[in-house]
Amino acid sequence: MYIVDLINKKRMNGKFNKNEIKYIVDSYVQGKIEDYQMSALLMAICINGLDSEETIYLTDAMLDSGDKIDLSSIPGIKVDKHSTGGVGDKTTLIVLPIVASLGVPVAKMSGRGLGYTGGTIDKLESIPGFNVNLNISDFINQVKKYNICIGTTTSSITPADKKIYALRDVTGTVSSKSLIAASIMSKKLATGADKILLDVKYGNGALLNDMNDAIDLAKLMVYIGNSHGKETRALITNMNYPLGNMVGNALEVKEAIDVLTGGGNKDLRDLCITLASYMVSMSKNSDFMSAQGEVLSSLRTGKAYQKFLELVKLQGGNINSINISSKIIEIKSTKSGFINNISAISIAEAALKLGSGRMTKNDTIDMSVGIETLKNVGDYVNIGDSLAKIYVGSKEIDYNIVLNAFEISDSKIEKEPIIYGIIK
Amino acid sequence: MYIVDLINKKRMNGKFNKNEIKYIVDSYVQGKIEDYQMSALLMAICINGLDSEETIYLTDAMLDSGDKIDLSSIPGIKVDKHSTGGVGDKTTLIVLPIVASLGVPVAKMSGRGLGYTGGTIDKLESIPGFNVNLNISDFINQVKKYNICIGTTTSSITPADKKIYALRDVTGTVSSKSLIAASIMSKKLATGADKILLDVKYGNGALLNDMNDAIDLAKLMVYIGNSHGKETRALITNMNYPLGNMVGNALEVKEAIDVLTGGGNKDLRDLCITLASYMVSMSKNSDFMSAQGEVLSSLRTGKAYQKFLELVKLQGGNINSINISSKIIEIKSTKSGFINNISAISIAEAALKLGSGRMTKNDTIDMSVGIETLKNVGDYVNIGDSLAKIYVGSKEIDYNIVLNAFEISDSKIEKEPIIYGIIK
Repeated sequence: MYIVDLINKKRMNGKFNKNEIKYIVDSYVQGKIEDYQMSALLMAICINGLDSEETIYLTDAMLDSGDKIDLSSIPGIKVDKHSTGGVGDKTTLIVLPIVASLGVPVAKMSGRGLGYTGGTIDKLESIPGFNVNLNISDFINQVKKYNICIGTTTSSITPADKKIYALRDVTGTVSSKSLIAASIMSKKLATGADKILLDVKYGNGALLNDMNDAIDLAKLMVYIGNSHGKETRALITNMNYPLGNMVGNALEVKEAIDVLTGGGNKDLRDLCITLASYMVSMSKNSDFMSAQGEVLSSLRTGKAYQKFLELVKLQGGNINSINISSKIIEIKSTKSGFINNISAISIAEAALKLGSGRMTKNDTIDMSVGIETLKNVGDYVNIGDSLAKIYVGSKEIDYNIVLNAFEISDSKIEKEPIIYGIIK
Repeated sequence: MYIVDLINKKRMNGKFNKNEIKYIVDSYVQGKIEDYQMSALLMAICINGLDSEETIYLTDAMLDSGDKIDLSSIPGIKVDKHSTGGVGDKTTLIVLPIVASLGVPVAKMSGRGLGYTGGTIDKLESIPGFNVNLNISDFINQVKKYNICIGTTTSSITPADKKIYALRDVTGTVSSKSLIAASIMSKKLATGADKILLDVKYGNGALLNDMNDAIDLAKLMVYIGNSHGKETRALITNMNYPLGNMVGNALEVKEAIDVLTGGGNKDLRDLCITLASYMVSMSKNSDFMSAQGEVLSSLRTGKAYQKFLELVKLQGGNINSINISSKIIEIKSTKSGFINNISAISIAEAALKLGSGRMTKNDTIDMSVGIETLKNVGDYVNIGDSLAKIYVGSKEIDYNIVLNAFEISDSKIEKEPIIYGIIK
């Protein structure tokens, strides 16, 4: 096989067979295909697409490029949860303690943030002392004993995906549903869960802006998961506005605690309860309503919060020393009217510029900075009402980015729900 | 401007403005855009296209990336001729001496061959001693005195095209009409002719297989040339079968001499007469028929051949020491019937494997090898009739490649003409 022939094949909208895709992935990992050839091929895939069969071949080739984690020594049905990434998405910090408190084992491998999307690992590391670098046997033993552990993925898991993702990031080849699906699902399949629950986001703060694209992506990932004998479901959720009121690492941990202790933003709470209920029902093979009953009870009784505190302690974190910046700028409305949207992408841009995220892989993060929205979509505001607090660190930003994120108008637009539906 | 934004723009089928294209070309030449980013962009261009305006911007940006040759000190209207490349295309060796013998100045910058396509410079270098490396003032002085000179292009002409072409060659991004048009026309505009005659080939041995694609490419190049105030015409010619009977460097020089001395293959002769007639009529602003009369007269009287001998002598070549391999394998037909085609691509593949061309830029060429077809498309052959001679050097090949190039059938298919038409 010659890579130029394969590139030409996809340029002319041809279909790859299993061997061709395996050749491409393996040769690229081995350095036998150059970056400039792979990026041309990735662009041809972005424009001409891969069908579902090719996407499964790609998923399998990436899955087989590295180690696979064996969780079979942990009793019970392990359900993994994965979000396609959004602004203010701290659901993992809330959902996992809930389900673990109900006897459902969660062995979670998470990632760091890049660009506008935050990462669970970064958020956890805003808790001083929290250790995410566990070896695999300690990781598994903690889940066996306490039903919960959150660690980072190692470089030995799907190295093909890591190399391809890094190239996509700098070559305008991120937005392909097949490439996104294969990237996510190869990692999910490599990390050993029995069932998979996906949170596929659409909107201006998501990888895919259009809801129909998100639905297509969700269907594709559900198909891949089910084809591998792992029951897979996907919620389709809204990311036109940030999830919850806090964006920024330490701020998001604080908001997670708010929800776990009975308060917090309604959208965030609703989504966490739904995600947790699906995870419990998938793990216990119980119906959704009874699972939801258990979830609500865990929150009400404080069991979920106790499990969160246990997790933090187990992994060495000190919950009492989380640092949130005390330099606070309050943003006040210059208009009166209804808030019809709070642009997720604008809030993300402001948070990134404050230093809460990474522009490139080697940037360091300021855990203490971020944005707290004080009003929600649908609220009515008067001129001078406080819209948001900006927690500032060492980086100056243009506060108008936050002000202009609030789309205020005389007429009220019906708010889109946080959850659109589920793909099974 | 950010290159990733520009790549995304073209991925989503957006249109570039002049500044964006200039930024891309200049930044790539300066090494500010990586190969892997450029190849992704080139693939997006291959699939989503450039419109005629974008193609002109690209042509201009590549033209402006290097030196331009000024031929204005040479009296008369200089007409350049360019072929998009084919198998057995030795027309330059025939046409230029004809027109120079008629007082039309020809200052020709030619290239070397790569892959299946031969290069005029390689063919000339099969004449021992022939020097193609002239400095620009010697080049111009020779044209002033003798109306003819053939040299290589220097690296200072359209460096952007050279860098982009090298990348296209290894990334499956060759077959874009806009990229081909901008590549050819930027070079033609940089080398200073007043008018341009193009020979755009279609067929299995051409860059573009489909005739309609060749017509589109021709129209685009004619539009670019005319937009730059240089009258441009394009012949559309057939490259499903090789041009003439000889393929291989020294063999092609021999066939050129055959035509210049009154013999040779009819298709080759017809095409050369037509190309020469257009060049003469464009240079002298005379009508085609009277130009053709001059051309036929130059061939009949031997003036064209004398001019060819003069060119060889001027550039140091020794016409009497051309070496053609004496190790000859004769290929005989295993079928009887009509020859409906002689696959240009198969003959090219065999010649390349014999060593007559380069697989990669640094390969050395065996000037003495090649293939001579003894029958033409339309001929009837019996089992055992000789179809071709293979002139073999140090490399062994599978002779069936040549045998199978002959498509023989009981029923005769009407032969496609060598010249389909002209785009003005």
